[in-house]
Amino acid sequence: MKKSVIIVAGGSGSRMGSEQPKQFLKWCGKPILMHTIERFVSYDRHMRIVLVLPANQVGVWERLCEQYDFTIPLEVALGGNTRFDSVKSGLEVLTEECLVGVHDGVRPLVSLETLENCYVTAAKCGCAIPVTDSFESIREMNESGSRSVNRAQYKMVQTPQVFVMSVLKEAYELPFQDSFTDDASVYESAGNEVILTAGNRENIKMTTPVDLLVGEALKKNGL
Amino acid sequence: MKKSVIIVAGGSGSRMGSEQPKQFLKWCGKPILMHTIERFVSYDRHMRIVLVLPANQVGVWERLCEQYDFTIPLEVALGGNTRFDSVKSGLEVLTEECLVGVHDGVRPLVSLETLENCYVTAAKCGCAIPVTDSFESIREMNESGSRSVNRAQYKMVQTPQVFVMSVLKEAYELPFQDSFTDDASVYESAGNEVILTAGNRENIKMTTPVDLLVGEALKKNGL
Repeated sequence: MKKSVIIVAGGSGSRMGSEQPKQFLKWCGKPILMHTIERFVSYDRHMRIVLVLPANQVGVWERLCEQYDFTIPLEVALGGNTRFDSVKSGLEVLTEECLVGVHDGVRPLVSLETLENCYVTAAKCGCAIPVTDSFESIREMNESGSRSVNRAQYKMVQTPQVFVMSVLKEAYELPFQDSFTDDASVYESAGNEVILTAGNRENIKMTTPVDLLVGEALKKNGL
Repeated sequence: MKKSVIIVAGGSGSRMGSEQPKQFLKWCGKPILMHTIERFVSYDRHMRIVLVLPANQVGVWERLCEQYDFTIPLEVALGGNTRFDSVKSGLEVLTEECLVGVHDGVRPLVSLETLENCYVTAAKCGCAIPVTDSFESIREMNESGSRSVNRAQYKMVQTPQVFVMSVLKEAYELPFQDSFTDDASVYESAGNEVILTAGNRENIKMTTPVDLLVGEALKKNGL
C-alpha cells in the first residue's frame, strides 16, 4: 500500500517563550519542521506528505521555504482549533486507500528504524503505535493523593502513529472527546485494536527551550 | 532538623556498554558521582552525606578521589544486592533523627530548587517526592493489549525522595516486595502518606550513552 504522512504543525509557541510557532524555530540550521519532513523523505522518497498548518501560518511557511530553498513536494491542509480537527483536515486530502502516519511536526528526531517499524507493522497488522519504556518510576494520581504503580505496565507514546487510512478516517467521524489525546485513542474508541511497536528514545517532542538543547546534542551525535 | 542524604551508587554499567560502573564514568570533566555529591554540598554545605557503594568498588572510588583531588567529607556504606538492601545499609549509618534524602548517584542534574522543594516540604509534611508531568501520551498494558490513559493522572518520579529518617527506617523493616521500585513505594507500604513536590525536568538518570550526551548539553547551558 502507498505510504503517506500527515504532519501536524499547529503549535503556537507559547511554551517556548517565543512569538514564533515552535515548528518554525531555527534549530540545527533550519526550521524544526523542515528537519521533520526530511526524515520521512529519507525513509521513502515517494511518501505522500500532507502538512497541516494554521491558516495564518501558511504565508510564513511559504516565505521560509523560499528562504531555505526547501523544495520537497507536499500538500498543505488548513488546521483546526484542536489537534483532532487538524488531523481530520489532513485526512480529507487523502482519498485513495493508503497507509497514513500522523506525526508531530516538532519531532524531528524520529529514527529511520522507527519509521520502518511503524509502516511495516501497520501494513501487516492494520496499525502501529511507537512506544518506549519509562525510565522513571510512575505514580498515579487519585482523589486521595497518589499511589505507586508498576512502571513496566506503562508505555510512553510517540509518533508517527500509522493506520490504514480508511479505517482511521472512519474513526475520526466520532464526536470529539477529551480522552482523544492522540490518534491511537481515537482509533480504539471506534472499536479497533491498537498494536504497539518500538519507538526510539531520542524521538522527543520539541516543546520547551530545554528540548532544543537536548535535541541539538542528539542530532550532532548522529542520533 | 539536620539534613542528610544517602547517595546510592550501585550501578554495574551494563546498560552503558562499559566495564566501568556508570556512576564512575567521566562526564563533564569528572566522574558523574562527584557532580552529584557536589550538588548537595552546593545546596547545604553542612549536609551529612552517606555514599553507598558495592564492596568491590570502594577501592576504585578511593583512587578516583585521589586522582581528582575530591575531598568532600562523606561516610561510605557497603551496598547490598538490590537497591532496597543498599538504602537499608545507608540508613544504618544514621542514628540521630534527621531529614534524609535518598538520591540516585547518577542524577547529577538535580537543581538547587528541587533540593529546596524536597527538604523544605519534608520538614513541613514528613516527606517529599519530586515529580514531573509526562510530556508524552501514556498507554497502560493489560492482558488483552493496552489502553490509552489520561496522562494528567500520572507523574514521573525522581529523586531525592526525602523523609524523616526514623519513619523511613521503620518502613525499611518491611520484607522486600517486587513493588518496591523506589523509597516512596516502601514508605507508603508501611502506611505513611506520600507527599509530592516539583522536581526539575533536567534531573535525568544517566543510564545510557544517550543520557550522557543529553546531560552534557544541559550542563553546558547552566541547567
